[in-house]
Amino acid sequence: MDVYQQAVEFHRKHQGKLGVTPTVSVKTREDLSLVYTPGVAQVCREVATNPEESFNLTMRGRSVAVISDGSAVLGLGNIGAVAAMPVMEGKALLFKQFGGVDAVPICVDLHTADELVAFVTAIAPSFGGINLEDIAAPICFEVEDRLQSLGIPVVHDDQHGTAMVVTAALTNATKVVGKKFEDLTVVISGAGAAGLAIAQMLLSLDRENGKLVKVEGKRVKEVIILDSKGVITADGKGLKAEFAKITNQSGRSGGLAEAIVGADAFIGVSKGGIMTPEMVKNMAQDAIVLGMANPNPEILPEVAKAAGAAVVGTGRSDYPNQVNNSLIFPGLFKGLLKARITKVTPAIRQAASAALARLVEPTADKILPNMFDPGMAEAIAEEVVKHKVV
Amino acid sequence: MDVYQQAVEFHRKHQGKLGVTPTVSVKTREDLSLVYTPGVAQVCREVATNPEESFNLTMRGRSVAVISDGSAVLGLGNIGAVAAMPVMEGKALLFKQFGGVDAVPICVDLHTADELVAFVTAIAPSFGGINLEDIAAPICFEVEDRLQSLGIPVVHDDQHGTAMVVTAALTNATKVVGKKFEDLTVVISGAGAAGLAIAQMLLSLDRENGKLVKVEGKRVKEVIILDSKGVITADGKGLKAEFAKITNQSGRSGGLAEAIVGADAFIGVSKGGIMTPEMVKNMAQDAIVLGMANPNPEILPEVAKAAGAAVVGTGRSDYPNQVNNSLIFPGLFKGLLKARITKVTPAIRQAASAALARLVEPTADKILPNMFDPGMAEAIAEEVVKHKVV
Repeated sequence: MDVYQQAVEFHRKHQGKLGVTPTVSVKTREDLSLVYTPGVAQVCREVATNPEESFNLTMRGRSVAVISDGSAVLGLGNIGAVAAMPVMEGKALLFKQFGGVDAVPICVDLHTADELVAFVTAIAPSFGGINLEDIAAPICFEVEDRLQSLGIPVVHDDQHGTAMVVTAALTNATKVVGKKFEDLTVVISGAGAAGLAIAQMLLSLDRENGKLVKVEGKRVKEVIILDSKGVITADGKGLKAEFAKITNQSGRSGGLAEAIVGADAFIGVSKGGIMTPEMVKNMAQDAIVLGMANPNPEILPEVAKAAGAAVVGTGRSDYPNQVNNSLIFPGLFKGLLKARITKVTPAIRQAASAALARLVEPTADKILPNMFDPGMAEAIAEEVVKHKVV
Repeated sequence: MDVYQQAVEFHRKHQGKLGVTPTVSVKTREDLSLVYTPGVAQVCREVATNPEESFNLTMRGRSVAVISDGSAVLGLGNIGAVAAMPVMEGKALLFKQFGGVDAVPICVDLHTADELVAFVTAIAPSFGGINLEDIAAPICFEVEDRLQSLGIPVVHDDQHGTAMVVTAALTNATKVVGKKFEDLTVVISGAGAAGLAIAQMLLSLDRENGKLVKVEGKRVKEVIILDSKGVITADGKGLKAEFAKITNQSGRSGGLAEAIVGADAFIGVSKGGIMTPEMVKNMAQDAIVLGMANPNPEILPEVAKAAGAAVVGTGRSDYPNQVNNSLIFPGLFKGLLKARITKVTPAIRQAASAALARLVEPTADKILPNMFDPGMAEAIAEEVVKHKVV
């Protein structure tokens, strides 16, 4: 049996992998009178009087919803709500396992930004935070942006989780090759949720009403973004066009073969196998290649290394340097919930990413910690908590 | 400290009472590759190909959502979504504790039937059943009725949970006093969710497009329903008017004092203290009095007994004969999930109620089992399962 068959049998045997369980013992009528009627009525009254108490008196203060419409799941694409459940249940499992956060997987049969915004707004009173997941671009940008005043943090992990981990990986890889972050020319293959959010973070930008604005923070020298048609252009509308205006200052055109020449780093969040050894050879000395298409990376590590890449990462666990969102989201939300932060700012994303990067003394084969390294979520949460608005 | 203060401190200490926890062990990269990428991709594909597999391969097959808009919470009224969370979290706890069902408390900031129907429809792919809770009448009727073709069972517990338990209680109380169910004249005080659903069940009715239709089953002789203004009338629209047309065949008018004369049973789902000893005295011989207003019943048991009532029940745990929905919903949903029943029919409600009634050899002080009686949910589930549509 390969891993795919094994996974199916594993899920069938356990009927999924998550349970909802009392955290207190209820064995007598007296216990019941505290957790349910009549005692619970007073708990309701306290929350009605002071809604902030919901974070102290219910599971809200330690829980998040992992919400997806199933429109952009893993490498599988738009498989719909019900088929996305195994991933969301897995994500919720990782939340608890690595961050101690109680996460509920919620897959919704919805298809427009308006519907998704209305849904998340309606369900917000039940949770301390919202992790949006596997929602396709460009709807994901609008949905996330419109939910930033909800009063609880709303993070589209495919955007910012990926951006935080990639930025940490690039920061450490840059150290390994002895370059400066501010001097890097970075080619990003993929102009969806992940690609644009990575560009946003590498250039220290934020979004306001669909426009890009500069925020404090370090910036790479140049970013060139490609979609499936090549280097993106300012034609058309939306966030991609906004990015086209402020990236690719060197005015490149064409596909990856043209864009990659002389680049210091390649970041692939696109499609397996699109990068050739020739392209790696045409990059600058000590090239950094992070090909994170899953399960087949843009270029296999052994091929990239043979072509001269100095540091290579993928999304896979069976190679060194796994670049995976799971390194960041448990600690990020652990901190957000602990400090009851209502909105994730660029400064928080930078702090979380930097905290992740600092967890290793980087070498070419270890630019990031391992998911099972102890204390990782705590270290990230500790930095996030410092951004509590008092 | 009284039970109210104790409950608040208890909830604060534990930050609520429910957790979301992995049911499988994840300790190595190999474990991760089964519960998350890359293995989970195949699980998604299986569900995408055959959506029914979602019940086998994810927690969906053993989980329900407990959904409320907080518009009719306990005796507290319309306290809103966030303040309803302590009750929904408690309800979810009882689901697991007594029925082994994984239940997620979800409180939504929504205010119309359309919004609630859209919300529940959107979230349905994530759950094997929906328990609607503490939604005010008359919206609750429309919402529940419109969701009956969702493909998973949707039950408004304040309606049918209450009706099933009350019917079981009345059935057994009738045995105790040696009367026949079919001969009873029953006065119901309260024409909200619970009152109308109880009438519906005692008369073996179902709802179709807002109209009442007869179904198979036993019927009491006469039902008289009162709201806060007295015996309900056929003026106006909606379900209450529909019930007015087919109840009160004896043509009574006025308040409870007038309606109760000669009645065999009183069922109170209204307001504490509204029933006097005089009213009990005016009932038929061997009167049954179930005053379930919470926490103060329509009449205190000692007062009702002194006035001649033969069997007395309340919603409270500190008196004999606690009539509480918690006796039914864990077993009901346990059975619905096990047999993957997509819709709760009148026959299922009757079967569950009858199963509950059969669990005791009734006496005046024990017309229903105790919540902590072992095997209760299993016995109810066993009857529900028989109604699986093959």
